[in-house]
Amino acid sequence: MFTMRPIGVIKSPYADTAQIPKGSGAQHTAEGVLEILPEFVPGLTDIEGFSHLFVIWVFDRAGKCELIGHPPTDDRPHGVFATRSSRRPNPIGLTVVRLLDRDGTRLRVCGVDMLDGTPILDIKPYLSGVPEDELCRGWLAEAEARIAG
Amino acid sequence: MFTMRPIGVIKSPYADTAQIPKGSGAQHTAEGVLEILPEFVPGLTDIEGFSHLFVIWVFDRAGKCELIGHPPTDDRPHGVFATRSSRRPNPIGLTVVRLLDRDGTRLRVCGVDMLDGTPILDIKPYLSGVPEDELCRGWLAEAEARIAG
Repeated sequence: MFTMRPIGVIKSPYADTAQIPKGSGAQHTAEGVLEILPEFVPGLTDIEGFSHLFVIWVFDRAGKCELIGHPPTDDRPHGVFATRSSRRPNPIGLTVVRLLDRDGTRLRVCGVDMLDGTPILDIKPYLSGVPEDELCRGWLAEAEARIAG
Repeated sequence: MFTMRPIGVIKSPYADTAQIPKGSGAQHTAEGVLEILPEFVPGLTDIEGFSHLFVIWVFDRAGKCELIGHPPTDDRPHGVFATRSSRRPNPIGLTVVRLLDRDGTRLRVCGVDMLDGTPILDIKPYLSGVPEDELCRGWLAEAEARIAG
């Protein structure tokens, strides 16, 4: 077992999960703030130069784990490790955000999809991505194709 | 505080951190296996259709946290949240791997950079990336330019 502690908290416009855009084609353009606890602020040194960050956080208000669930994108069930469901064995969330600016303990970012007050576990620089033409997206691509008709 | 438990373990060719390619231009082409505990195997349903996965894991043999550290890519110090250092407040690692195939509890993957025996906390499908031309990579790009010089 491993014990994790928050390094900060997310300020987001979403008070309720119903407000968060979900499903196929959902755009995450909301702005928010990663408010880092003062004791961890030295760890932010030089972060301003990165355009994008990985934020690792806790689904602190998720229901109990469901190994097979129904994502909003499909009418068929899928395994939790093949989805972004909150009901995971370890309730860890992962979001890529664009860094807008930093003001001391506060990183203003674009692309939040977390609830207001969500605890942050870690921040990492985004260094490179997988090119679109190398990606296969399994059941999600199939569901999108069915919806598109 | 949040308590996390392993969902499985990584079988990798690396017994020691000195064997893991590091620094600028390091290529992660090693194959490994994500060996998932039997109780979590239903959660893998439909994962085979995804070409790439995020693996969230624990630096279980890392030294103590260093908020300012010296990454192998540069001779200047940087904040831990602007690096991939193992010495983080929460020792969480994040790796994108390519899924080669699945055999029951075992996901064979390409691109491991973890030590053999590393505990896995979560697996998520990789759905999209940030285009290369939208990325800024701060001190890392500057250090690479100095080295190329």
